[in-house]
Amino acid sequence: MPHTDALAHLDAHYQSMPPVAAMHVAIVGYDGDRLRLSAPLAANVNDKGCAFGGSLGSLMTLAAWGLVSLRLQKAGIAADVYVADSEIRYRAPLYADLEAEAELDVDASWDDFLATLRQRGRARTYLVARVPLPDGGVAAEFSARYVAFAKG
Amino acid sequence: MPHTDALAHLDAHYQSMPPVAAMHVAIVGYDGDRLRLSAPLAANVNDKGCAFGGSLGSLMTLAAWGLVSLRLQKAGIAADVYVADSEIRYRAPLYADLEAEAELDVDASWDDFLATLRQRGRARTYLVARVPLPDGGVAAEFSARYVAFAKG
Repeated sequence: MPHTDALAHLDAHYQSMPPVAAMHVAIVGYDGDRLRLSAPLAANVNDKGCAFGGSLGSLMTLAAWGLVSLRLQKAGIAADVYVADSEIRYRAPLYADLEAEAELDVDASWDDFLATLRQRGRARTYLVARVPLPDGGVAAEFSARYVAFAKG
Repeated sequence: MPHTDALAHLDAHYQSMPPVAAMHVAIVGYDGDRLRLSAPLAANVNDKGCAFGGSLGSLMTLAAWGLVSLRLQKAGIAADVYVADSEIRYRAPLYADLEAEAELDVDASWDDFLATLRQRGRARTYLVARVPLPDGGVAAEFSARYVAFAKG
């Protein structure tokens, strides 16, 4: 499946979830290794005029989840993907639209993850994500473990 | 300020945040030490028909943030409260309305937090929260560090 079709499928998935639709999440980039999502500040603002921590966490969780889903789709494996645990560091307030970029943790391997999933019907892997600040710094960082369960 | 007024004030705060209003968050309990929030599954459901991990994280983040805010208000201190970092463990899918309960971490002290904030104008403390399952288990657990900055 080419990137365009896979991303349209992922976007339809996102928009089918009411809390994600309410955040106005959009896919803004995918190069095979990194998935970038955006969400407007207006729909994700807190009481202090900056991005709500919960929205930052949700956007990073969704970006990492989406990246795993895209890699499974590319590998032709039907599986349910869940976030198992996550750590978030909020480093600076963000007074601009939100953008989250997710990629595989440096210590993890797609090949290992997919091989284990094929062999055992379930597998885990580790993702990282970040929300940049407009000036080049970092608003929030995320690391998480995801698990996949093969279907059928 | 009696609990009723403080809770009305906190609820207005929550509802003023678009992503929180979209989650349909409601305050359902406060005994001075524990704050409980709820949110309907329909507004917080994922692609698999259970609660979206991002919504679980947001609800626990909001419950802990609200508890800190209530304790500051009770102490007569005007301060901005931010979540600094958090860890979430997703233990089981939740196919029911969401409810999050937050309290101070067992190793933390409100007296120490408030004294430090009065003396230095800023202070940190540690909170925990969880989302129970209808049958008595736990859907998600959360621990986080919050920081407060005195205003003015």
